Amino acid sequence: MQLPKRVQIKEVGPRDGLQNEIMFIPTDAKIKLINQLSDTGLNYIEVTSFVHPKWIPQLADAAEVLKEIKRNTDITYAALVPNSKGLERALDAHVDEVSVFMSASEGHNKSNINKSIDETFPVLKEVVDGALAAGKRVRGYISTVISCPYDGYTKPEQVVYVAERLFDMGITEISLGDTIGVGVPTQVDALLQEMLHHFKAEQLAMHFHDTRGTALANVMTSLANGITKFDSAFGGLGGCPYAKGASGNVATEDLLYLLHEMGIETGVNLKKIQQTALSIERIIGKNLSSKLAAIARGEEES
Amino acid sequence: MQLPKRVQIKEVGPRDGLQNEIMFIPTDAKIKLINQLSDTGLNYIEVTSFVHPKWIPQLADAAEVLKEIKRNTDITYAALVPNSKGLERALDAHVDEVSVFMSASEGHNKSNINKSIDETFPVLKEVVDGALAAGKRVRGYISTVISCPYDGYTKPEQVVYVAERLFDMGITEISLGDTIGVGVPTQVDALLQEMLHHFKAEQLAMHFHDTRGTALANVMTSLANGITKFDSAFGGLGGCPYAKGASGNVATEDLLYLLHEMGIETGVNLKKIQQTALSIERIIGKNLSSKLAAIARGEEES
Repeated sequence: MQLPKRVQIKEVGPRDGLQNEIMFIPTDAKIKLINQLSDTGLNYIEVTSFVHPKWIPQLADAAEVLKEIKRNTDITYAALVPNSKGLERALDAHVDEVSVFMSASEGHNKSNINKSIDETFPVLKEVVDGALAAGKRVRGYISTVISCPYDGYTKPEQVVYVAERLFDMGITEISLGDTIGVGVPTQVDALLQEMLHHFKAEQLAMHFHDTRGTALANVMTSLANGITKFDSAFGGLGGCPYAKGASGNVATEDLLYLLHEMGIETGVNLKKIQQTALSIERIIGKNLSSKLAAIARGEEES
Repeated sequence: MQLPKRVQIKEVGPRDGLQNEIMFIPTDAKIKLINQLSDTGLNYIEVTSFVHPKWIPQLADAAEVLKEIKRNTDITYAALVPNSKGLERALDAHVDEVSVFMSASEGHNKSNINKSIDETFPVLKEVVDGALAAGKRVRGYISTVISCPYDGYTKPEQVVYVAERLFDMGITEISLGDTIGVGVPTQVDALLQEMLHHFKAEQLAMHFHDTRGTALANVMTSLANGITKFDSAFGGLGGCPYAKGASGNVATEDLLYLLHEMGIETGVNLKKIQQTALSIERIIGKNLSSKLAAIARGEEES
């Protein structure tokens, strides 16, 4: 079994996780959680989103969070930015790195951004240009790379089409999202085989949701294809807007367990992530679906 | 990606699942659940255990359950049998196939059976002889094939040692159990590489617990090694006696989702298994950790 020696975890819980929780987590609590994450060995945290609060009220405190967290200089603190207005706010709050996003499928892109795929590129180009001019690296998310809740299965060629245009803008890395968590290893393998004809493994990250329990199996297939960057959320935060009661992002602690037990280094402390997962469970008042959080909870109770 | 075209699911929920639930499920309810499972397309169900009720009070009604279920002639109804006394009761209740069990590690075997590994073989031999004489096939479980809660990691050679002696008795198939759900694909791969030097893939089944979320990743590795038989439990029933609050067996419905989406046939109806999972959730009054059960629950609620 050919596996990389080291993997980078990109913690997206404070953004992708909390934006999908129903309740508004108080700003103080968010800052504490991010500070707790900053002490786990992570070197990349996506802390918030500058999407308009009308769309994501859960993260209406984006600027305050980004300004108030305790910065560790070893860590990149990133934020999601939808347009030039958002970029202005993010830069003003001293974001380290900017993420832009769109979908590989027309249906989801239309629903999420209210534009066609081709209409989206100029909007993102403006953000990328502005971020690069301000000396910031830009990461791109492509959603629905396996399947779309509106259009069904996504052709790998469609993902290549979107990725090529994003890389042409000067984006450093693209994160490929199985947004609705339907993917299985054969599909991930087919996607990556096609992507790796056009791009290098180090240009890509994988972003799995564990809605149907397949995330870690998909991670294995990605590792076998040479991918070394994965997005995940502490506690497995996030849920899925298209499947009520379902799981969210793959849990950082579950991903760490898998990687560490296979001898793959991440630099991240599993126990500290488990503790952060228990912290958010106490705040939202419910148990999350993460397996390693459940084990830590059981140990605390006994 | 090389994968088999067809996989056999061995449903062990009524035995391995219910024996680890804290409450005693009423006999009528057990019979109904098994009848419900008999209508899903499964062709193998382990319905109960004839271990003495002193040790597993949850299954004290083993004989009644086995006698009262509605038999489908396409299905093998199996039961776990620890010794000759248990075999007598199981045969009397018209069991189709017998399962015997022991561990690959001394610590777990001692704790579970109160005998050393070498002391266990003669006890099982008596059961196997009796079952074969009665015209029944015998399946063997080997527990703790990856790691033991007492002895740590299990050497693959130790699993081979136990398996060879069981096959010599005339056992048809051995199910390899990651009893405490700690295994990761590299370990499963190492185990199977060693096992397949000695035995054929069709002699082996894999039995994963999803305690740390790695079960489906381990299934992928097993499939890549040519394994085509998997144990699972509807709803992901079972818990783990060594990790409070943790998940149990890999959920049949989650396994089915993975296999079917990859084009692997099982003959089992995913929706019907999801419904059976919701039935047991209503009986025990709590949500199980299965992802596909959570999705079915969400659909019912909305």
